[in-house]
Amino acid sequence: MELRYLTPLSAKEQLAQGLDQPKPMALADRVRFSELDILRHVNNKAYLGWFETARVSYFDQLCAPHFAGLPAPRSVLRNANVHYIREMVLDEPYITTARVLTFRNTSYVMEQQIWSDGLRATLEAVMVLRTPDGSAGYPLPKALKQQFMSQDGATAASG
Amino acid sequence: MELRYLTPLSAKEQLAQGLDQPKPMALADRVRFSELDILRHVNNKAYLGWFETARVSYFDQLCAPHFAGLPAPRSVLRNANVHYIREMVLDEPYITTARVLTFRNTSYVMEQQIWSDGLRATLEAVMVLRTPDGSAGYPLPKALKQQFMSQDGATAASG
Amino acid sequence: MELRYLTPLSAKEQLAQGLDQPKPMALADRVRFSELDILRHVNNKAYLGWFETARVSYFDQLCAPHFAGLPAPRSVLRNANVHYIREMVLDEPYITTARVLTFRNTSYVMEQQIWSDGLRATLEAVMVLRTPDGSAGYPLPKALKQQFMSQDGATAASG
Amino acid sequence: MELRYLTPLSAKEQLAQGLDQPKPMALADRVRFSELDILRHVNNKAYLGWFETARVSYFDQLCAPHFAGLPAPRSVLRNANVHYIREMVLDEPYITTARVLTFRNTSYVMEQQIWSDGLRATLEAVMVLRTPDGSAGYPLPKALKQQFMSQDGATAASG
Repeated sequence: MELRYLTPLSAKEQLAQGLDQPKPMALADRVRFSELDILRHVNNKAYLGWFETARVSYFDQLCAPHFAGLPAPRSVLRNANVHYIREMVLDEPYITTARVLTFRNTSYVMEQQIWSDGLRATLEAVMVLRTPDGSAGYPLPKALKQQFMSQDGATAASG
Repeated sequence: MELRYLTPLSAKEQLAQGLDQPKPMALADRVRFSELDILRHVNNKAYLGWFETARVSYFDQLCAPHFAGLPAPRSVLRNANVHYIREMVLDEPYITTARVLTFRNTSYVMEQQIWSDGLRATLEAVMVLRTPDGSAGYPLPKALKQQFMSQDGATAASG
Repeated sequence: MELRYLTPLSAKEQLAQGLDQPKPMALADRVRFSELDILRHVNNKAYLGWFETARVSYFDQLCAPHFAGLPAPRSVLRNANVHYIREMVLDEPYITTARVLTFRNTSYVMEQQIWSDGLRATLEAVMVLRTPDGSAGYPLPKALKQQFMSQDGATAASG
Repeated sequence: MELRYLTPLSAKEQLAQGLDQPKPMALADRVRFSELDILRHVNNKAYLGWFETARVSYFDQLCAPHFAGLPAPRSVLRNANVHYIREMVLDEPYITTARVLTFRNTSYVMEQQIWSDGLRATLEAVMVLRTPDGSAGYPLPKALKQQFMSQDGATAASG
């Protein structure tokens, strides 16, 4: 199956590309020259950009509709735990994924992965929603919490 | 016609996407969040990365075969003249092109363009080939010069 | 004379560091690991960031006061002509400069340079001022034009 | 006390700038325009570059001498846990630190911090040393382990 780039992949396409299970958001891309450093492998910082791209697509396409008619929240990354599994080189294709694991009243934990002939890197990101001026927490809409559970298999965390 | 990303586009695909004429190398991509600055448009520096990606693909796919069995030259950008025509925003798809305009014994001038519903930016790049240690000029193989003329419509510059 | 980083250098400091003449804005910095590419030299794109940093400082410190009480203009880079003279490597200190060469009613041409034991790169940038919404040209205040002439030695271009 | 940029700060300078305790490596820098995103604050990815710059300085200045006469190891970042405490904006000065917390036979854990009127972000990085071709672990020289203990207050981890 030919890999479609920069367009959300279907569950079937994801499985054909070797992912362990379909994710709510999966985008294919390819390593660029500018992402390499003097060791001729992808620099550690580049992965953060890949995760960001998929996270923004996840939010814009799957979360934003739940804020229709409301002020747009400010999404803040509070904690990022990146694990690097196997280095990557020029022109390698890869798939970046995003899925919500748990959520609280004004925050959620997202699991992100890089797949390319196996798992290459992972990120666990704690995202916090703030009011547009950043002064206070912004509660997740109830319908979005429901979607996290039904679509991502997420669970509500206490507290 | 659906746009194929990150894969060299055929002449037919290029014309269907509105380019003025087919180029030897044309790659489609899409604006990422990390390329935006505080003005919410693509920052000027990001275009340089787009041009670089297409230039590296042009060299690796169309020039490198002419150096088979020879030491790999060091490609150096000597001059870059960028013209910004119309600003770009998040998620816009675009096509980056590369074509050689003129060449001399150890250098060539490349024309690069960004297309997205018209021409958005251009680069004229003077590329110099150096020996692997960078100490001297590296003459273009004769077959590569021939290809510049036949494939790109390039002309030999005097001097 | 010890080099002061990230702080505008005086005319005397600039001359002591080998510049050909004092510039209205000159900032010292040093090459970082993240600016290197697989050739172990500073990547071409990094210079654009250095020029941008000095250009923003030039505008914020020397131009912005002339817009006090007026809507803030949108500064747009229309053309960038970069010339690369000698490659740079890790940890090299350098000085980035900015000076206005010519101006028109809603635009100006800025000369920028990278100095480090001689001239390493130059940029000629065409800057256009637009209204905050970007819809129209924004005339340069008369006092700013006067300053371009008296401080930078700039000349008014016709048209 | 005036802040010296891009040069290792003495213990006395670090305390004068508000750090909780002196670190083996502390470098001052300032937020650049290119590090801001559409929210007009420093983008999450930029911090990774700041940490990298201090980590490279730490290694080149404090670790590399212990490998004199030996093949240079390949330093690999295996895990990065970043905590974002308070957002940063244009032109803010800050100090990036590096200190080793624990070490094993071929790896160590580094604590990194960003200070600017309090603690703004932290990184806990697991660094692994590999042979030049990356094929095997590279044991830390005994003198380097001694230095981690005496200079950084690091402790040997079991396993």
